[in-house]
Amino acid sequence: MDFPWPDAGTLLDDVMTPLPVIDEDRLAANIARAQEYMIEHGLAFRPHIKTHKIPAVAQQQVDAGAIGINCQKVTEAEVFADAGFDDILITYNILGAARLARLMALNDRVATLRVVADSAVTIAGLSAAVQDKPLRVLVECDTGAGRCGVQTVQAAVDLARAIAAAPGLQFDGLMTYPAIGGADAVEAFLQDAMAQLAVAGLDCPVRSNGGTPDLFAAHLVPSATEHRAGTYVYNDRSMMRAGECGADDMAMEILTTVVSRPTPTRVVLDAGSKALTSDLLGFTDYGVIPALPGSRIVSLSEEHAVVDLTDCTVPVPGIGAQVRIVPNHTCVVSNLFDRMVFHRAGVVTRVLPVAARGTVW
Amino acid sequence: MDFPWPDAGTLLDDVMTPLPVIDEDRLAANIARAQEYMIEHGLAFRPHIKTHKIPAVAQQQVDAGAIGINCQKVTEAEVFADAGFDDILITYNILGAARLARLMALNDRVATLRVVADSAVTIAGLSAAVQDKPLRVLVECDTGAGRCGVQTVQAAVDLARAIAAAPGLQFDGLMTYPAIGGADAVEAFLQDAMAQLAVAGLDCPVRSNGGTPDLFAAHLVPSATEHRAGTYVYNDRSMMRAGECGADDMAMEILTTVVSRPTPTRVVLDAGSKALTSDLLGFTDYGVIPALPGSRIVSLSEEHAVVDLTDCTVPVPGIGAQVRIVPNHTCVVSNLFDRMVFHRAGVVTRVLPVAARGTVW
Repeated sequence: MDFPWPDAGTLLDDVMTPLPVIDEDRLAANIARAQEYMIEHGLAFRPHIKTHKIPAVAQQQVDAGAIGINCQKVTEAEVFADAGFDDILITYNILGAARLARLMALNDRVATLRVVADSAVTIAGLSAAVQDKPLRVLVECDTGAGRCGVQTVQAAVDLARAIAAAPGLQFDGLMTYPAIGGADAVEAFLQDAMAQLAVAGLDCPVRSNGGTPDLFAAHLVPSATEHRAGTYVYNDRSMMRAGECGADDMAMEILTTVVSRPTPTRVVLDAGSKALTSDLLGFTDYGVIPALPGSRIVSLSEEHAVVDLTDCTVPVPGIGAQVRIVPNHTCVVSNLFDRMVFHRAGVVTRVLPVAARGTVW
Repeated sequence: MDFPWPDAGTLLDDVMTPLPVIDEDRLAANIARAQEYMIEHGLAFRPHIKTHKIPAVAQQQVDAGAIGINCQKVTEAEVFADAGFDDILITYNILGAARLARLMALNDRVATLRVVADSAVTIAGLSAAVQDKPLRVLVECDTGAGRCGVQTVQAAVDLARAIAAAPGLQFDGLMTYPAIGGADAVEAFLQDAMAQLAVAGLDCPVRSNGGTPDLFAAHLVPSATEHRAGTYVYNDRSMMRAGECGADDMAMEILTTVVSRPTPTRVVLDAGSKALTSDLLGFTDYGVIPALPGSRIVSLSEEHAVVDLTDCTVPVPGIGAQVRIVPNHTCVVSNLFDRMVFHRAGVVTRVLPVAARGTVW
């Protein structure tokens, strides 16, 4: 199947929609701004590749000064190892014989690979599967986000001891994916855990903190040695709400076309949940159309977005007009497309495979 | 990248999760039941391939008696034309020179291809692009769903005249994607439109009605000549809520693994929005776990599902245990995976490419 990806040099006005596109200048500025902040505060930066899933973009992040990358799944890390990345943290409890075998093959070929564990079951599985090269393991801590992670400092210390005692494993530190605005809780947890680990005679060289919503507050967790973030690279509506970026920092837009105008206050665009996903992230509509102030994307089906223009303050676009959407959440959009189109000032610069799209394992 | 798709004969207990799987017997029963209903009521049936996106499954639907298939986009129809399907309805307003050129190439090689239009702009574009073979066009009517479609019978008749008068186009009838439970409104619209079209001297051979939620109420629209439906083939939680199917008719389940149990009432599964999507469809949680009554999938991130077990009435599964989810919406799950795994009684039967995944154009 010959899908209609544009060539370099194509004008965005001429591409087939729906299509997410990345502004090269905004991308570069987002990468530079985050890295400069981390350097200013003496923090190591480890971008999460989930947002772009593209080795060439990760290389831009590393070229700017990132110490390595963060992946979520083994197959995702395999894609980036194939591309030559040699410092990878997989922030996931990895379980199951087949997946553990792949993980250990990865450990053998990546210079610095780390994983996390939040249970004795995960630690036992890692230890049983490890091959010649020791595997570095961080203890995942729940400092308020309510997802994975040990609930107490005592539990973290207990797991650290278990890792240190497990054949083939090396306890390498702590990792948390904190609640938004949770700097104080993270810092208190880390300080307490580091003190208790020192009493237990365990080194804790890595303290990995994370999240784009707290990226520019990372200095409020001085006990962290590194910060992980993904969404900052493209930014999105949810990041603007978090105060993380402004309207001019949105590197990703979704190009769409008006395909129907059934009533004076309703237009239908050709981008549905197959282009935007249905991620709301707390919003009540499915993205923002900057050029149509007051418009609301009130519903999505797979191939249609219904836009309510009742409160729109500018003329309604005609059928066939191109309309740009800033998505609620960029990472999930990347996961829907085989390739990503980059542009500068409306001219396509490069079209790259989204190499790690669909890597759920 | 060598992704871990299972081979035929593999036990589902041994596959790498997360993984959507299709029960062959339930699939066959869903196809047979819908087709038998349509035959009983003298309706032609045109399955929408959006749910599976797989030519071999569409062939099962046609072998059971379907007259052809329904696609939403030109590239989606191309995939099925490549597989030999020769009666395709694309229920979309198709716009833009590049897409229209592809549509006309498709028209030249598909025996019976129809598209829809709800505006003079769409009709003008179709007419300007048509090649030697006339293109069959239906008028899309909004009978209450509030998406695309003309708002009145008069507007439908006006567009029918415009199609009939446009060089290269053939007016072939009416199409609606109705509101759920909207049989009376659809029937009234069709009766009125057919009467007025007759007065205008226009034949209206096709009256295409649609939707899985109303599939087994299709006979309540006797003026329709055919019914379109997609989701019935796999079924999902939203279809069970609509009374369309029972728990034993769910052909798709998502296999997941417990990767964390941070508290006594919280487990975390390895299936997030990259496996389930965040489609809520009016629900307040992200799918059902039949084996854990009272459990609720309260939040998703890309790679994690957080399950609240506060009200769960059975023992909490251990870390590493496999847990099956019935998704809110099957169609969007199909769009996330390159292949679909089929099984009978827990043994993999076939693994097929999701050939039309990602066809948004």
